[in-house]
Amino acid sequence: GGRKYFNDVAERTEVPGVATGLAWTPVGGDILFIEASVSRGTGKMTLTGKLGDVMRESAQAAQSWVRANADDLGIPADAFRYWDLHVHVPAGAIPKDGPSAGVAMTAALTSIYTRRRVRHDVAMTGEITLRGLVLPVGGIKEKVLAARRAGISCVVLPEKNKTDVDEIKDEAVEGLDVTYVKRIPEALDLLLENEAVEDPAELFTISDREKQLAGPPSNGSPVVVSDGDPEPTPPGEPVMNRAR
Amino acid sequence: GGRKYFNDVAERTEVPGVATGLAWTPVGGDILFIEASVSRGTGKMTLTGKLGDVMRESAQAAQSWVRANADDLGIPADAFRYWDLHVHVPAGAIPKDGPSAGVAMTAALTSIYTRRRVRHDVAMTGEITLRGLVLPVGGIKEKVLAARRAGISCVVLPEKNKTDVDEIKDEAVEGLDVTYVKRIPEALDLLLENEAVEDPAELFTISDREKQLAGPPSNGSPVVVSDGDPEPTPPGEPVMNRAR
Amino acid sequence: GGRKYFNDVAERTEVPGVATGLAWTPVGGDILFIEASVSRGTGKMTLTGKLGDVMRESAQAAQSWVRANADDLGIPADAFRYWDLHVHVPAGAIPKDGPSAGVAMTAALTSIYTRRRVRHDVAMTGEITLRGLVLPVGGIKEKVLAARRAGISCVVLPEKNKTDVDEIKDEAVEGLDVTYVKRIPEALDLLLENEAVEDPAELFTISDREKQLAGPPSNGSPVVVSDGDPEPTPPGEPVMNRAR
Amino acid sequence: GGRKYFNDVAERTEVPGVATGLAWTPVGGDILFIEASVSRGTGKMTLTGKLGDVMRESAQAAQSWVRANADDLGIPADAFRYWDLHVHVPAGAIPKDGPSAGVAMTAALTSIYTRRRVRHDVAMTGEITLRGLVLPVGGIKEKVLAARRAGISCVVLPEKNKTDVDEIKDEAVEGLDVTYVKRIPEALDLLLENEAVEDPAELFTISDREKQLAGPPSNGSPVVVSDGDPEPTPPGEPVMNRAR
Amino acid sequence: GGRKYFNDVAERTEVPGVATGLAWTPVGGDILFIEASVSRGTGKMTLTGKLGDVMRESAQAAQSWVRANADDLGIPADAFRYWDLHVHVPAGAIPKDGPSAGVAMTAALTSIYTRRRVRHDVAMTGEITLRGLVLPVGGIKEKVLAARRAGISCVVLPEKNKTDVDEIKDEAVEGLDVTYVKRIPEALDLLLENEAVEDPAELFTISDREKQLAGPPSNGSPVVVSDGDPEPTPPGEPVMNRAR
Amino acid sequence: GGRKYFNDVAERTEVPGVATGLAWTPVGGDILFIEASVSRGTGKMTLTGKLGDVMRESAQAAQSWVRANADDLGIPADAFRYWDLHVHVPAGAIPKDGPSAGVAMTAALTSIYTRRRVRHDVAMTGEITLRGLVLPVGGIKEKVLAARRAGISCVVLPEKNKTDVDEIKDEAVEGLDVTYVKRIPEALDLLLENEAVEDPAELFTISDREKQLAGPPSNGSPVVVSDGDPEPTPPGEPVMNRAR
Ligand SMILES: [Ca+2]
Ligand SMILES: [Ca+2]
Ligand SMILES: [Ca+2]
Ligand SMILES: [Ca+2]
Ligand SMILES: [Ca+2]
Ligand SMILES: [Ca+2]
Ligand SMILES: [Ca+2]
Ligand SMILES: [Ca+2]
Ligand SMILES: [Ca+2]
Ligand SMILES: [Ca+2]
Ligand SMILES: [Ca+2]
Ligand SMILES: [Ca+2]
Repeated sequence: GGRKYFNDVAERTEVPGVATGLAWTPVGGDILFIEASVSRGTGKMTLTGKLGDVMRESAQAAQSWVRANADDLGIPADAFRYWDLHVHVPAGAIPKDGPSAGVAMTAALTSIYTRRRVRHDVAMTGEITLRGLVLPVGGIKEKVLAARRAGISCVVLPEKNKTDVDEIKDEAVEGLDVTYVKRIPEALDLLLENEAVEDPAELFTISDREKQLAGPPSNGSPVVVSDGDPEPTPPGEPVMNRAR
Repeated sequence: GGRKYFNDVAERTEVPGVATGLAWTPVGGDILFIEASVSRGTGKMTLTGKLGDVMRESAQAAQSWVRANADDLGIPADAFRYWDLHVHVPAGAIPKDGPSAGVAMTAALTSIYTRRRVRHDVAMTGEITLRGLVLPVGGIKEKVLAARRAGISCVVLPEKNKTDVDEIKDEAVEGLDVTYVKRIPEALDLLLENEAVEDPAELFTISDREKQLAGPPSNGSPVVVSDGDPEPTPPGEPVMNRAR
Repeated sequence: GGRKYFNDVAERTEVPGVATGLAWTPVGGDILFIEASVSRGTGKMTLTGKLGDVMRESAQAAQSWVRANADDLGIPADAFRYWDLHVHVPAGAIPKDGPSAGVAMTAALTSIYTRRRVRHDVAMTGEITLRGLVLPVGGIKEKVLAARRAGISCVVLPEKNKTDVDEIKDEAVEGLDVTYVKRIPEALDLLLENEAVEDPAELFTISDREKQLAGPPSNGSPVVVSDGDPEPTPPGEPVMNRAR
Repeated sequence: GGRKYFNDVAERTEVPGVATGLAWTPVGGDILFIEASVSRGTGKMTLTGKLGDVMRESAQAAQSWVRANADDLGIPADAFRYWDLHVHVPAGAIPKDGPSAGVAMTAALTSIYTRRRVRHDVAMTGEITLRGLVLPVGGIKEKVLAARRAGISCVVLPEKNKTDVDEIKDEAVEGLDVTYVKRIPEALDLLLENEAVEDPAELFTISDREKQLAGPPSNGSPVVVSDGDPEPTPPGEPVMNRAR
Repeated sequence: GGRKYFNDVAERTEVPGVATGLAWTPVGGDILFIEASVSRGTGKMTLTGKLGDVMRESAQAAQSWVRANADDLGIPADAFRYWDLHVHVPAGAIPKDGPSAGVAMTAALTSIYTRRRVRHDVAMTGEITLRGLVLPVGGIKEKVLAARRAGISCVVLPEKNKTDVDEIKDEAVEGLDVTYVKRIPEALDLLLENEAVEDPAELFTISDREKQLAGPPSNGSPVVVSDGDPEPTPPGEPVMNRAR
Repeated sequence: GGRKYFNDVAERTEVPGVATGLAWTPVGGDILFIEASVSRGTGKMTLTGKLGDVMRESAQAAQSWVRANADDLGIPADAFRYWDLHVHVPAGAIPKDGPSAGVAMTAALTSIYTRRRVRHDVAMTGEITLRGLVLPVGGIKEKVLAARRAGISCVVLPEKNKTDVDEIKDEAVEGLDVTYVKRIPEALDLLLENEAVEDPAELFTISDREKQLAGPPSNGSPVVVSDGDPEPTPPGEPVMNRAR
């Protein structure tokens, strides 16, 4: 089983901006991908993937943390001012919520801006705070089992979730490298490759003339095209496929 | 039967910006058209056709992917900055939702910006992700049968939906060319004509003076004039025709 | 009967920007007027008349089509950039919805921008698409009868609704000139007068100094002051007259 | 009875920008005041007074008509560009809705911009359209009786409501001057004083330097701080007085 | 009893921008404070204190009246253009609504902009209109008793509420100075101190260079971070303290 | 028990911008952290942490008070104009509401802008007003016990809550230093360290060229990506983990 998934994960994270998170669902754990992409713009952030309010707030906190620590991370300030950011979480029809993707969000954002890829064999879960703390989350057992099932080699968890892992039978986590972190910087050290695939300072460079034509910075809430509510269907009318 | 529909499809896709998608409905599969049009503006995106949240997010993801890959596709950056984009899905009174029109959205957008028409005899279904993956979708059997009924020659499907097609009886898909794709670039190679009907670099050219008068770039959510909810009708008051 | 209405229609459409549509209601067909007006501004579109989401989207599609075809229609680009557009559908207290006013919307908008009046003796129904197709709509029998009752001479219908007319008894449509169209340009040829009442190029001219003071272009959703929901009334409090 | 109200009306309309409308309520007719005021700004329109969607749309239609006819009315274009407009309908706690205040809205707006006062002894009701038609409204009998009760001398009604007045007993409208109108210009001739209290061209003058500092024009929906819904009150918590 | 409250009121109104209003609640009358503060900005208005729609509209009407009468009040126009206004009504957890704080809103706003303090021994109630009328409100008996209980010396009421006071037993209002007003200017004469604590023309002065850096004026609805609805709490989850 | 928490608190507040508040929950008191962070921008305020309307309004009031008192606090005006502010309250999945975090909000904001850390051994509760008053709040007993349980040395409370503390048994508050305040400045004297970790005048300095590229100031409501409502979950679809 793992083999099939492993290829999937490796393939899905081969470019900067993709991190592998862990989710809890009523039928067990699952892996999910946080995808970040950038294109020239004015600093807008777009959030898609049927994300609930808490998960949107988590993305906002990840962005604030990355921006506030841009200097240390080697990200040019212009990257936030003259590029737009899109964060998407496939699959698009499945509602997702909760704060536990905070670490994965932060890894995906740091990756897209530093051009350092997220290690393809590592999955992560954990809530983040603006100060850079990694807070414990629920569903650890199901998540760890899902990671192993998906062929993941290494899992990064909040330090305060250590007791949850201790309760899992040893054979169930055999061969899985579990690391605990207290703060975001430690997590990023474990999660991101050391080498950037390209130089962020070069990529996020823009001429003065382009700056003048760029227009004023984005000034408002993240772009969300979903209100989070299920769409009502008038009786008797056909509806296009939501199935997945 | 097919004859009648075939003409319809060919006629409906004879200009750039129109792609033929496949939909699942409670009463069987159907084809649907994704229409994209551009006019001079500031980069706004308008979405119409009674689209649900997931389908709107899908359009947003398609746009992000096209913008992030504009260089490779030969689309001038000014096309996104100094033109507005409108994506409409007829028929306007039928609610539509789900992520499965992602590939068709991407084809329609790439077509309108590259001025390469979508091949008139091909239909498509599949969810997309920001990284350019094509994810599997539901309702494959009904969709494939609908494509054939509509006189479509070729259907492009997500690779992970191959097993769904294998389960359909051979005679039901006879004469239908089914191709599987893993990533958006492969899909576009199959879906778009090689030749552009006009040169995008020329079409999307704008003088410096026009740039100065153009105003700042669009800076917010896609323009949506529908909230996706059915409109309440006060009892006893006449309502204009919703029928189709 | 017809006499009284006929005067009404003629009077109501004697200026550019007013088109006569056809509506279906639970108690039979009716005529309705699409009113468009322009005033100096920044390109905003305002929609009023208790319009449902689908009808608002229909207005948006009509505007996109007219803008994308402005060159062919002889409309100066500045008309969309330095004027505001208001589309109103009386009577203001009656909820209206559905896509079938698409052709009438397009006729009213083309009329206000080209300064060619809509022919006063013609009524129309039909959904439009961004590509300029005219799609079939429901309630044809009731609509045609309403047009005749209102003294209309000519009705323009979608080609795919021909069979609906064939089912109406001949004497019921006697004296009514029914024409079928497949695309918007054909429809506009039938609906608009050949001569403009004034030269649009002259009317929509604006000095460079005025352009500089005009401010940036409108940048967002159409202005809608109605959310389409019925207003709740606290028990025991008086409410102003909604009657019509 | 009338005496007391008459003074009230005269007093309330002694400045430009106030028109006396007529309302229907479940307990009979009533008079209501439409108040318009302007202050330096960027062209914003603010609507208050617990107005329902239809009444807000009516205000929007009134503004569009006045702007589109500004030249004929002698209103400088800068009045709409460099001043803000506030339309309020007291009493603020009573929900109001419906299109029948259209004529009164138009009178109040024309009055505030032309500086011609609305005649203090006249009340009015009627829906308006963008083309300047005055459409019939309901509750005529109750409204006319309310006008007389309030000491009004003259009532301006839509022509199509003539039959409603004919049905009222003669003694009930004795001494009341009832006039019927088909179009807004006729109505304004009857409703507004001939002389302006000051010269609008002078009042709405602004220096070039002020224009430069004024900022871009207002660009969006009317400012509404009410969503039209009754406010929920958590059980057991005190609520400030809504009584009137 | 009064002693304790009196100190409270005096203390709470010792700076410009604070007015003492009167509220009706199901358990009797109460005093409430309207707090206004200004800081450098672009003309935004922020409203907080769990205010219902009608009370928000009342604040908007107060602002429009003060702006329209700024010249007479001696307020420099720049005060509205280059400063932000925040209106807050403690206590923040108690829902408040209704139009009866209109006079107190107007007093607080006039006070913050003219730098004349509101007299600390006076409380007020009354709805306002854009034309400057003071309209009668409900709950007069309870409000007057609450004012006396709180040690207030003087109460300013709408003239049309005189009969409500006449019905209160004489001993209940003994020692309370009750004044009636018909228009806002009369009310302000009674409510505000004659001397300003500082010169508004000096305070609201800003250099030309600062004007250029200030950015465009605020252009939209008042800033409201509350939608007036009670927050739902998912069952079984802890909620932070709402108590007061 | 306290030992574990104490370390937690000390660690969590070691940088400027973090204050320790006290919360009441149905199962007892708890401590919560108010985190503020700043990054270069245009003056936007972002609020996250599943905050209810009243708590959002509380943050807004804190910001207004800090801005209005910036001079006295030694905060450069540019800090509000050219930096964005993010206020987050972990844990992100737990709904929080009420006005009682006002003092902690004000402390966190003053800390982030003055670069003086909040004392790590002090917790606080209290509603604030725009005028700088500290109003009493509920749940004092539970909050004080929670502070002690968490190893806090000093608690700052509203003066009007003194009687609530007097009712707690002496041994329950043994060793806890409880201080009462009437106004925000007194509270800040107790809460913030005297020394700044860096010079705010230096940190919030920006070149003239940067000011010109910065764009216009933020002009609207605080950025909130949560509407405060629980997200509906369609039956039968998996939902990502909300557990904590
Ligand atoms: Ca929602
Ligand atoms: Ca939705
Ligand atoms: Ca919805
Ligand atoms: Ca709707
Ligand atoms: Ca709705
Ligand atoms: Ca509504
Ligand atoms: Ca509503
Ligand atoms: Ca409301
Ligand atoms: Ca509400
Ligand atoms: Ca709320
Ligand atoms: Ca809510
Ligand atoms: Ca929500």
